[in-house]
Amino acid sequence: MKNLNFSPLKKLEIILEGAHQDFATDLLDRAGVTGYTIVNNLSGKGQHGFHEGHLMFNEDAVLIMIIVAVPEELVKPILEGYAPFFGKHTGVVFISDIQVTRLVKFTGAGEQAG
Amino acid sequence: MKNLNFSPLKKLEIILEGAHQDFATDLLDRAGVTGYTIVNNLSGKGQHGFHEGHLMFNEDAVLIMIIVAVPEELVKPILEGYAPFFGKHTGVVFISDIQVTRLVKFTGAGEQAG
Amino acid sequence: MKNLNFSPLKKLEIILEGAHQDFATDLLDRAGVTGYTIVNNLSGKGQHGFHEGHLMFNEDAVLIMIIVAVPEELVKPILEGYAPFFGKHTGVVFISDIQVTRLVKFTGAGEQAG
Repeated sequence: MKNLNFSPLKKLEIILEGAHQDFATDLLDRAGVTGYTIVNNLSGKGQHGFHEGHLMFNEDAVLIMIIVAVPEELVKPILEGYAPFFGKHTGVVFISDIQVTRLVKFTGAGEQAG
Repeated sequence: MKNLNFSPLKKLEIILEGAHQDFATDLLDRAGVTGYTIVNNLSGKGQHGFHEGHLMFNEDAVLIMIIVAVPEELVKPILEGYAPFFGKHTGVVFISDIQVTRLVKFTGAGEQAG
Repeated sequence: MKNLNFSPLKKLEIILEGAHQDFATDLLDRAGVTGYTIVNNLSGKGQHGFHEGHLMFNEDAVLIMIIVAVPEELVKPILEGYAPFFGKHTGVVFISDIQVTRLVKFTGAGEQAG
């Protein structure tokens, strides 16, 4: 059995062209984020006419969304790391508040799941 | 380089049968939302027994989720636009608070990304 | 026509290996959640070094994300139901606040959509 501990975190949903996946995840690695989930099957459309600056994609681009949950203090460094990239490439990062239940396994052996 | 400006927006996650994608995105276009992201590979199940009115899908329907970030004042017009549709078809719209970093490129030429 | 009623709900995003989908949805069924949406095309990576206990996945695992919207009082029972499972398997549950428009069809016949 285990307890349910709710931890407030920030969820980042990073949408960008799949060609840049390694760049995006390398930056997360360097920020200390060791895990993430990627939604692969995205399409997108748009122009940057959206007045809040939601940069958009060519209709034929292959897009991915990288989902990570991070402590609040990591949000700014990660986004600052992405800023020069997004100055040259299209994409967007959605930031939202989530809670995550602490589900750590306290085995010494780690995952080792097949 | 660029600054990070955080803008509070509303995220809409519009889940509906893929056959109605054009209807859904046309309505967004008319509301002034020029960009969106679509998750294509969804499945769903359910009946409308859920007491909060979460309309659900036949197990064999091909579903999509359209993700858009809009200023708060656009939420009501968009949802009112969808209401007659959802009166006849299954689907659901999730609304949540997000922040988006302003990543506008100030080039005159626009995207032109390959 | 219909009215727009906004209901505050909790969104659960349950990310786990696809092999365990039936377990996860059966538990939702037993909790009284009759509908859900599943994103099928996920990949993930990680170790459990993330200090908030975000358990992660082998790079080759086939992952899914089950999205459900539930009344707040269902969150704890559902997560308690998952806890023993997550004690043995990797995965994570993101909890966030959403609003859902009440789009119930008041037809007697139900969906019956093709």
